[in-house]
Amino acid sequence: MKITPVTADLSIKRTIDQGTEEQRKAVLNILEDVKQDGFSAVKRYTLQFDGVSPDAFKVTQEELDAAYRKADNRTIAIIQEAIQNIRAFHERQVQQSWFTTKPDGTILGQKVTPLDAAGVYVPGGLAAYPSSIIMNVVPAQVAGVERIVMVSPPQKDGNLTDIVLVTAKELGVEEIWKIGGAQAIGALTYGFEGLEPVDKITGPGNIFVALAKQIVFGTVDIDMIAGPSEIAVLADHTAKASYVAADMLSQAEHDKMASAVLVTTDRTLAEAVSVEVEAQLKTLPKREIAGASIRDYGAIYLAETMDDALQAINDLAAEHLEVQVEDPWAVLPNIRHAGAIFLGSQSSEPVGDYFAGPNHILPTNGTARFSSPLTVEDFTKKSSIISYSKEAVKAHGDKIASFARMEELEAHARAVEKRLEED
Amino acid sequence: MKITPVTADLSIKRTIDQGTEEQRKAVLNILEDVKQDGFSAVKRYTLQFDGVSPDAFKVTQEELDAAYRKADNRTIAIIQEAIQNIRAFHERQVQQSWFTTKPDGTILGQKVTPLDAAGVYVPGGLAAYPSSIIMNVVPAQVAGVERIVMVSPPQKDGNLTDIVLVTAKELGVEEIWKIGGAQAIGALTYGFEGLEPVDKITGPGNIFVALAKQIVFGTVDIDMIAGPSEIAVLADHTAKASYVAADMLSQAEHDKMASAVLVTTDRTLAEAVSVEVEAQLKTLPKREIAGASIRDYGAIYLAETMDDALQAINDLAAEHLEVQVEDPWAVLPNIRHAGAIFLGSQSSEPVGDYFAGPNHILPTNGTARFSSPLTVEDFTKKSSIISYSKEAVKAHGDKIASFARMEELEAHARAVEKRLEED
Repeated sequence: MKITPVTADLSIKRTIDQGTEEQRKAVLNILEDVKQDGFSAVKRYTLQFDGVSPDAFKVTQEELDAAYRKADNRTIAIIQEAIQNIRAFHERQVQQSWFTTKPDGTILGQKVTPLDAAGVYVPGGLAAYPSSIIMNVVPAQVAGVERIVMVSPPQKDGNLTDIVLVTAKELGVEEIWKIGGAQAIGALTYGFEGLEPVDKITGPGNIFVALAKQIVFGTVDIDMIAGPSEIAVLADHTAKASYVAADMLSQAEHDKMASAVLVTTDRTLAEAVSVEVEAQLKTLPKREIAGASIRDYGAIYLAETMDDALQAINDLAAEHLEVQVEDPWAVLPNIRHAGAIFLGSQSSEPVGDYFAGPNHILPTNGTARFSSPLTVEDFTKKSSIISYSKEAVKAHGDKIASFARMEELEAHARAVEKRLEED
Repeated sequence: MKITPVTADLSIKRTIDQGTEEQRKAVLNILEDVKQDGFSAVKRYTLQFDGVSPDAFKVTQEELDAAYRKADNRTIAIIQEAIQNIRAFHERQVQQSWFTTKPDGTILGQKVTPLDAAGVYVPGGLAAYPSSIIMNVVPAQVAGVERIVMVSPPQKDGNLTDIVLVTAKELGVEEIWKIGGAQAIGALTYGFEGLEPVDKITGPGNIFVALAKQIVFGTVDIDMIAGPSEIAVLADHTAKASYVAADMLSQAEHDKMASAVLVTTDRTLAEAVSVEVEAQLKTLPKREIAGASIRDYGAIYLAETMDDALQAINDLAAEHLEVQVEDPWAVLPNIRHAGAIFLGSQSSEPVGDYFAGPNHILPTNGTARFSSPLTVEDFTKKSSIISYSKEAVKAHGDKIASFARMEELEAHARAVEKRLEED
């Protein structure tokens, strides 16, 4: 890998696939058809795109049980422990409703309410990551969402993969539909007989799923449209080159458009990482993907000072940031933008992908400047509470009416004054 | 007003103006020009759309001081008290960073960081509501956003209105630009010499502003695109018809597409409100707007039971909900969807628009099912923190590697195993 000095306003800008106008029109059509024709449209598109016509689109208890019986005990135990860790972390995110009172009898507050229903999209084939199911479902469950609906495209045999069913069963998700693509997003948004609409749709998918989510946004809520994965490593002379290289490659193997960047104050490390990346790459099963990612979106930047390095790290606003420096906690206060921050040489990024507890659904493409990991809060909404007393209206009503008239809203002023004039 | 029985799945569906394809193209052009040409494009579009070419686009301290000297003391005092109340409420929303430790040395946590910079759009002319400026700026300030930039289109004389400047000065906003329309959204997103880009843009605007915000979303964050205002009133026999009618009209006067709905269990009240609305409407300065709103999007629904009424209220998921029943706190737990909930006969909706403390920027058009009022959190973002110890990696590393291999991500597994093999 080439080593270059850090420059001002570092950024890894990639052109995210926004879909073509043709794809957008196709998706609009599918959504409209599902809205109009419900299940029969879903059936039609499933045959067209997935090449199958399942006997039943809703997964039965028997299917769940059968998949579960086939799973080996160690796999189940690992999934269970991961769920437990992830649940424990997300429980810390639960927000309480609160209120405040005033001596004049006024009560103000904020009520937190879980969403009624959430839909989780699980991609088909190899991309049906159990970790992704866990990361989408757990925050919704912890938030108190009563109904969680999972959708996933059927395979060629008309079924979902065993690992998807096992993970769903471990999570206690019971409503699972064999529907994928834009038609699944339409089904979750508009519903059909047997499937009630949901309020929010999360989970990754291909370009058709992403376009469909963008289009239905507003009718339902959606999560962010995720871009390719990214890792930035901030390292000094204490970092181990083999660790840094391995971690960079762990993101590079995801996608040819994934990005792996090292920012370091130490030239020796920079050179060693460059060598290690090439060496480790050679024996990776996904060396073609990882190699392309490193070539096109990988970089090693050399900074003169830790301050310069931190500035570069904040400019990058990476999805994953590893801090492999002598005292990682000392630099933490100066890290402003990153989706998840991994502190110390032992905290390799994959620790957070599956097991530690925090969510692995993180802002990409520089959006960590203003976006957050998926949280329990994303499955709740708030309502303001205002209870004004007679005394409070008497004391402040004239001021409120004046404010309304400042904005030439006479009916607003009169609504308040009605309470002043009548006893 | 007509009185009808409540039906299942009540909703006030209005076709929100999404803009024409032509308007969208015009906005895309403006944004592209501002991105390419910076200030010179802003200058050109300001002359074209606002018909002026201000000497300086940035408001000076002298302009702020001059506007302030002209303002009367009572106006200033009311604005100050409103800001104080609104600030006090929003301070309750501040979230703390937190962390948790495990005996094996692992530390997990969530770091809350304010956005670096926020832009507030303030519409021109009469829509330049001081309350709207306060409601956008205060949560950003309480969140700790260091840089708040206000933009607003210049009037025919090349200046901003005094009330905008006075409110900005009271809030302590110092960076104010005389730029409006899509060019202002472009300037905030891409910046130009003298104006650094921001991370999030909030505030209402016309269709060009709304389209521009939708297009730049992703490069920066935006607030929700607000629809016309709405009020729903839940009332029983204890409610006062004149209050209910006045409150319904207070929202109806905003917009011909605003909606005002009463859901009541009491026929006598329903009939009295119908009469009162017509009577009060007659003397309103904005009777034409309010009358159209009541005619097209107003309704009185009669429910047989309070349970039915509550179901209807939840189906509506109104922006503003007034609860004028015998014991409003008794029904609060059953209200699942509403932007702001006003409890009791004294809590008329305008109390919350200007003065009480909660934010008046609320989800419209049924989106209260999944969206929240504007909060301090909207001006912060979170980063997950993961610090794994050597002991934790030793204990769990093999499970994490197995999980990675379950997803066929070998480089992930190796990154963790590197820590196991080397000591």
